[in-house]
Amino acid sequence: MKNSAISEGPKDAAPHGPAGGISLGPLPTQIGFLLRLAQLAVFHDFIRSFSAVDIRPAQHSVLTLIQYNPGIRQAELSAVLGIKRANVVPLLDGLEKRKLVRRIRAESDRRSYTLHLTDKGLELMKILTRLREEHETRLRDLIGEEACGTLLELLPKLQKMSSDPVGDDLAEGE
Amino acid sequence: MKNSAISEGPKDAAPHGPAGGISLGPLPTQIGFLLRLAQLAVFHDFIRSFSAVDIRPAQHSVLTLIQYNPGIRQAELSAVLGIKRANVVPLLDGLEKRKLVRRIRAESDRRSYTLHLTDKGLELMKILTRLREEHETRLRDLIGEEACGTLLELLPKLQKMSSDPVGDDLAEGE
Repeated sequence: MKNSAISEGPKDAAPHGPAGGISLGPLPTQIGFLLRLAQLAVFHDFIRSFSAVDIRPAQHSVLTLIQYNPGIRQAELSAVLGIKRANVVPLLDGLEKRKLVRRIRAESDRRSYTLHLTDKGLELMKILTRLREEHETRLRDLIGEEACGTLLELLPKLQKMSSDPVGDDLAEGE
Repeated sequence: MKNSAISEGPKDAAPHGPAGGISLGPLPTQIGFLLRLAQLAVFHDFIRSFSAVDIRPAQHSVLTLIQYNPGIRQAELSAVLGIKRANVVPLLDGLEKRKLVRRIRAESDRRSYTLHLTDKGLELMKILTRLREEHETRLRDLIGEEACGTLLELLPKLQKMSSDPVGDDLAEGE
């Protein structure tokens, strides 16, 4: 219980590195804890590579969904990506301001909007696709092709841990 | 490009469910995207189960680290868990206010504090340990023992994607 029992590890020890004599207790055997650290590290690489075009991961997901589903509605986007409606509005405002996305009033329901990429948005998607592929190549080089395949198979299964992930938010805490 | 091409899927479609005819494009093959959805779902279960004692995942990590390293310093905690110093202070303030953690001025360096669990904090850890084990059992029941072992092996490797995960924050966006 005395201070002398505590290792004076490096102050900048990364969570993944040897924790400089500091015990992580049961944390490294907790999948939730490891998922969060892995996600932060992978997003960090993603964010760094996308920062050249000032795009965050949630913005990338939104743009991708609009690209693959031109005319998608705001509510659908919010539900499918698990982004709260309160967060999806400013996110779309930002993309519209940058002239990457256009909101068009739905003909069938004048209260709702459909979403479309502009030509500028489509051009940006080409760059984002290239950056994403480079990011994925780095990831594959790091852990190997087989491990990537295993993760692509296992990670979706974990999503069943919650029937309501929309309570949390894909756009927060990137 | 017409609205009619868009499926009117259920408005509450979860990100993991069939997306009601909405294409996710390349997103489901992106490990970063799947990591984030998996982490949100796993944390959601964790948060729900810990909400009975009003403890969030980051608070749980902090309490665990102090339990296993009595006398640990704030800066070490911050570095090891990848929580920004600006966020670790209010987090510790909250735990101190609830009389779960005590800050004691370090004898060797009067400017820094060492952290300790109080008796109340140690009692709470017993409950948290039980809740955590129940959470982990649910996870194991969901994906199986073998898949859990594989994830425990693979997830730490992903942490090497970034040399500076502390730039992001374990305590944010839970």
